[in-house]
Formats: sequence, C-alpha cells, structure tokens
Amino acid sequence: MSLKKKPVNGMKDILPAEMRLRDYVTGVIKETYGSYGFCAIDTPCVEHIENLSSKQGGENEKLIFKILKRGEKLQLAEAKSVDELVDGGLRYDLTVPLVRFYANHMNELPTPFKALQIGPVWRADRPQRGRYRQFVQCDIDILGDATNLAEIELILATGQALEKIGFQDFNIRLSDRRILRAMAAYCGFSPDEHEKVFIHLDKWDKIGLTGVLAQMEKDGLTKAAMDKFAALIAEMGDEKAGAGSLGQLKGLAAKLGTLLDAAVLQNMVDIIESVAAISGGAYGIIFDPTLVRGMGYYTGTIFEVQVANLAGSLGGGGRYDKMVGDFSGQDVAGIGFSLGFERIILLLMEGGVKPPDKTLKKAYLMEKGLSADRVRETLKMATNERPGSAEVLVAWMNKNKKFQKECLAAEGYGEIVEIYANGGNTCT
Amino acid sequence: MSLKKKPVNGMKDILPAEMRLRDYVTGVIKETYGSYGFCAIDTPCVEHIENLSSKQGGENEKLIFKILKRGEKLQLAEAKSVDELVDGGLRYDLTVPLVRFYANHMNELPTPFKALQIGPVWRADRPQRGRYRQFVQCDIDILGDATNLAEIELILATGQALEKIGFQDFNIRLSDRRILRAMAAYCGFSPDEHEKVFIHLDKWDKIGLTGVLAQMEKDGLTKAAMDKFAALIAEMGDEKAGAGSLGQLKGLAAKLGTLLDAAVLQNMVDIIESVAAISGGAYGIIFDPTLVRGMGYYTGTIFEVQVANLAGSLGGGGRYDKMVGDFSGQDVAGIGFSLGFERIILLLMEGGVKPPDKTLKKAYLMEKGLSADRVRETLKMATNERPGSAEVLVAWMNKNKKFQKECLAAEGYGEIVEIYANGGNTCT
Repeated sequence: MSLKKKPVNGMKDILPAEMRLRDYVTGVIKETYGSYGFCAIDTPCVEHIENLSSKQGGENEKLIFKILKRGEKLQLAEAKSVDELVDGGLRYDLTVPLVRFYANHMNELPTPFKALQIGPVWRADRPQRGRYRQFVQCDIDILGDATNLAEIELILATGQALEKIGFQDFNIRLSDRRILRAMAAYCGFSPDEHEKVFIHLDKWDKIGLTGVLAQMEKDGLTKAAMDKFAALIAEMGDEKAGAGSLGQLKGLAAKLGTLLDAAVLQNMVDIIESVAAISGGAYGIIFDPTLVRGMGYYTGTIFEVQVANLAGSLGGGGRYDKMVGDFSGQDVAGIGFSLGFERIILLLMEGGVKPPDKTLKKAYLMEKGLSADRVRETLKMATNERPGSAEVLVAWMNKNKKFQKECLAAEGYGEIVEIYANGGNTCT
Repeated sequence: MSLKKKPVNGMKDILPAEMRLRDYVTGVIKETYGSYGFCAIDTPCVEHIENLSSKQGGENEKLIFKILKRGEKLQLAEAKSVDELVDGGLRYDLTVPLVRFYANHMNELPTPFKALQIGPVWRADRPQRGRYRQFVQCDIDILGDATNLAEIELILATGQALEKIGFQDFNIRLSDRRILRAMAAYCGFSPDEHEKVFIHLDKWDKIGLTGVLAQMEKDGLTKAAMDKFAALIAEMGDEKAGAGSLGQLKGLAAKLGTLLDAAVLQNMVDIIESVAAISGGAYGIIFDPTLVRGMGYYTGTIFEVQVANLAGSLGGGGRYDKMVGDFSGQDVAGIGFSLGFERIILLLMEGGVKPPDKTLKKAYLMEKGLSADRVRETLKMATNERPGSAEVLVAWMNKNKKFQKECLAAEGYGEIVEIYANGGNTCT
C-alpha cells in the first residue's frame, strides 16, 4: 500500500480538543483586535518566489517550501538550477504578503490602515518539540501612521488580547533599533560591525552574556568595544514597569549623549508612560537594552512579550518604515505585532485550559432497529433544541453502551437520553 | 524593482469588506454544524504527493501545485522526471486529508466521527471569473456510520446552515450511484460502458440532454442503449419535494425491477421522507436521476444543492465507503457534504448582503499636536467603551477632515468624536 497515514514530516494533524481551543483563542483575538478597529484581511498562502527571496526575510529565506512551475513553463531538461524550476513558494511570514497587499491596494484602503491577519505560514526548519513546519501566525499591523500612537495601540490591543486569553504575569519589553545603534557606536564598534553585534546580542536569551561575548570574540569584533558593551549592559538589567525601567532608559540616554537623537528617547518614554497609564499596570512595560529581534527590516521601535519564568516569547514585532517602499517605490510607515499563536496554544494545553462549554450539551442514543418514525421524532426534538448555544448529538446506541456513555460524558455531554424501540426512554 | 505587487496568478487578496462577510459566514457555518455535534479538525495544507496522486481525486490530480524536495534529497542533475524532484503537494480537496487523518487517529476519535473542516485548497486550474486557484472549502463528514442517519443529518445540517446564511429558494437533489448503475444496465449499456455514461451525463447541466447524447455517440457508446436512456430520463424530470418526486423515484424503481436492490430504493425514500418531515419544507429535497457528481470514489448516495434560477451548485457530496480502507486496509463507512464556500460568498456579495454590524461603532479623531496627556485620556475613554460588541477607533484627524469623516461613515462608524488641542470636542 503506497498511501501514507502520517502527516508530512514536521507538520501536524489537529484533533478536536485542540481545535476547540484554537477556535476559542482565535475568536478572543479577533474580537479584541476588532474592537480596536483592526480589519481582517487575507492573502494567498502562495507568494511570488521573487518576493520571498528579496532579503526581507533573513534566515527564513533559506527555509522556503518552493513550488514547481506548471505546464509548458516547466522545462526540466534545460534547467541548470532550481531557480529555473520554481515560480512560487509558501509564505514564511505574514509581513511580506501584507506589505505586497498594501502596495497593491493602497488606494482602496483607509489611511492609516489597521490590518489583522491570522493564517498559516511554512518554514522547512528542523522539526522539534512544539515547533512545526506549518504554523499559524496572528499579526496586527498599522500602515501609514508614523507617530507612536501606532506603537501604543499595538501594545495595548495585544496586552488586552493576552489578558482575555488568560495570561496574567507577562511583560512587554521594548527597545529601538536606533538606541541599539547608538549603544554600538558609543562602545566604539565600527559601523560595519553593528549588524554583527546585533546578531550576537540576539542570542542573549539562549546563551547568556558570557556566550554572546565569546561569540563576538570568535567573530573578531573589536575587543575594547566588547568590554565597554558588556559593562554598559551589565549596569542596566530590567525590572517591572515604573520608575526603575524609565530611570535606566534615561540614564543610558544621558551616557549616549548626542549619539542618540533626543526625539528617539522621548518617543520611547512616551510609549512606556502611555501604556503603563492606560493598561492600569495589568502587565509590565519595560525597556530592554538587550532586545534585538531577528528581522533585518526593522527601523525603529521593537518589542517582545515575555511570560514570567518562561524562556522565549509569546510574540513580538516592530517598526518597518522602509518595506512598503520596496514594493511601491514610495515609503509608508509600517509597524506590526505578531502573536506566537502556537506557543500560546501549547502553554494553554499544558496548563489544562479548556474553552468555555456550550450551555446545553445533550446526546440522544437510539437503540438500533428504531422505526423510521421514531428516528424522525428524535431528530425533530434535537432540531428544536439546537437554537442558541447548544450542541445536540443524535447517534445510534453502541453494543457497549456503558463505554459509549462514558466517552460522551468525557466530551462534555451533560445530558444523555436513551431512546428504545419498545417506547421507553431513559434520561441520565 | 523585482518585487511584485499583484498576487500570484489566479489567487486573490481579500479586502476588509469581503473578509468581514467571510468571517461572518464561517461563524454561522461553524455554529450550525457545531450544534449537530460536528467537531472541527485541521490537517496540513501540504500532503504527501503519493496520497494526492492515488487516483482518488479524478481530474484534480492533474492540477496539483507540487512542492520541491529540500536539502540533500533534491538531486536536480540526476532527476529524469518531475516525480523525482517533489515529495509533497498542496491539497486539492479536504476529503483525501480527512481520510488520511481518520486512518491515522481512528483510535483517538469517537465512533461515528463527525468532522468539520474549513480551509483552503489549491487547484492549478485555468483562472476564470469567480474561480480561483486557492479557495476555501467547507466540509462535514461522518465516518463510521453506514446507516442513512448519516445522510439525513448531513442534509439537515447543511440545509439549516444555508437557511441561516440567508438562502431561501434552494433544493437538495439526490441520487445513488447504485441507481445510476441499474439505469445504465436497464438501458443495455455494457458494464465497461457505465463509467463513460456517467462522465457524459455529468455534463447535462452545461450542455443539456442533446449535448450529452451527441458526446455519447462520439464516444461510440451503444446506440440502442443511448436511445433507451434518453427516453427513460425524459420521462422523469424533477419537481419540488413531495409526492411527485417520490412517485418518479418509485416509478423508475418499478421499471428497473431486480436490477435495483429494494434496499437501495427504500434507503432513498427514507432519506427524502425524513428530510422533508424534519425540515418542515424549508427547502426542496428531490430525487434527480441525472445527478452524477464527478469524483470516482462515491459508492452510494450522492447529493447536490441547487439554487433556483442559478446554474451550478452551492455544494454537494456523497457516500464513499471504500476510501478509508485504501489508507488503513480496513473499510469504514464514510460520507461527506462540501459547501461551495466561494460560490456562497460571491452570491452574497452580488446580492449586497452585509454581515450584521457591531452595536457600537465609534471613532475618535484627534487634532494633530494634541498633548500626550490628552491622547492618553482619549485612549482610556476608548478602552473603557470596548467591552461588549463595540469597535472604537482612535485616529489622527487628517487635513481633509470632511473626506475622512465620510470614509468613516461609509465604514459604518455611527458616532465620530473630534478632539481638539484647545480643549473643545465635537460629536457627530
């Protein structure tokens, strides 16, 4: 038999219990973001290979599932490289398609445009626990607003969505690529070393400061600058939102002096103060000088959600003011926040969280051999009970009725009615 | 500039207005099917190329978007055919992945298993109006119930979903592959002509009886059998549910005599009577002797939704009792109903149908230069108004305020509050 029962390598089937949770969380996210005026849109899962290979995607560009050309365009015999065989690929994120979408439809969309996208993306990464080759991303973006109203709204909406999903002890950490650059300059790294510094610093969470410094040394970065950098970061650390965090930011800014534009500092202070005031301290909002975010397209503010006592993040994002210009020739301010949907689901499942059940969950079990009339009667009763928040199942009674009822009870059916051919009904 | 703004050929971007409608319809479908106990599941969009090329998919197998192997497995220089270069493809329907899913997880699922799937599928068809290369399918299936309770529930649930979406004048047409075979035998077609007869008959909607007969003649089918077939069908036609349609079915059965198993007739009569009784005549349920349905995997009942005065169908499906066995080696009764989601959306959009709006749609427009404190105050007001069914937008006032307000009104914002730096607010 040549048919395969398992899903393709690294991708997964989603069973009913997980799907109920996913649908519930998706609903909460859509409702919350919708209440802030974010509009849902959708783009094709297949994207032009040129758009996916435009150096916007960093490491993700190495992980593309490529799609073969079709019909006469596919010339296997003449092809000298893979590039000649493919014309599309599965999207590896939702940002590249969004920016293409915006460049294409700008005139039909409001300004600023607040977009919500929830959909699958694909990366041919090495499969590992909790990490799949197809996974759902959940992004909000604001295009056409260069002010920090965009940052503040993205953070407030995301913070509220996470609260509603049930997360309590989380921080939103933020920084600005321009602060990172000023720090690198202050320490004495040459401009062509900056990107390398960021790439190493991005691994802090995984390998710690010692690891980062070791990698920097291996990479041949200026030793004196490294020492100054280590000292600068060691002086800071991070705390929950409030005077401490803002004090650190302001202290850093004083040191950086004219290397940091005063407007960049004011922008960051403004975001932190606004979010703290409006969220009422439901979560922390803190400056984190070690935050980098991997993607090369970020131009300003960057942020990340971190849950207490958990490695990794629940999501992140930042400002990308140059990316629309790559498609349309005209720069448009852009900023996005992507929730780590799969991570959120994994944490909720590990925590045993279940979505709220329907008000009525009732099952009719019909004895086999019941007359067509009695079946119709039962189906009619079920139909009448279904309006509203109800789930009413009609099924044949199995031979092992006890086991069947146990299974139904485990699925949440609180009421089970047995319908017998001799006319007797039992209700449990 | 090598970046491309348009979506890939034959696929489309979905703008906010259409997306709102799609989300609304999806919600109605999920709620309705959920109330019948159908459980949502999900499968990867990428499927093993072997599973997609197993002759289950008929013509669709020629339309697969194929995915290139990766890493060392991709050996371009040695490849003699495309088959050696690919290991996966984008699914062309939801039935093949469902059956693989069921074969893989049978022991973790209830019996019978009632599945709901809503997701994109891909076919590299020639793009045409309203027909895209990526489109959403919406399927319900029952696995493990060989009785016609499965048929009756699939039809009742789908009929109710269509009613709730807003369709009024539609019929569900049904037949049975076994009736078709008996008809072909009765007319004198040889057994090896049967499949050809069905393929031609399937084009009735597009080319009419004359066209079908011309194609049959061209294909060299037995002339006398064709004449008898034409006469047999011409005697019938179809009407709204009731005595007429059942009468036709019974008349046909009487003619077919022992060529048709009495249980097959009783099964069809039972389905029609049950659906008519329980649906209360909200839609028609009629026997249609010309119904074929394209897929080769159907083994029994087949059905299709037809809207009055519209060519084509809103969905269809049938029984496939042999397909699970192809994956697991053990046959399991299966039956599915697939709604034509894209067709439904297209009809609703053409009819100007819009989803119900939120209870509160309010926009705050802030004059540029408003102090950080006033911005926070506005954001706080908006936050407080968001719980419940509300959409509250906070935005900067554009230079052309009149146009901005017109746009907001067109988007459904019923209340617009203008916030000025000098302290004055205006509410319209």
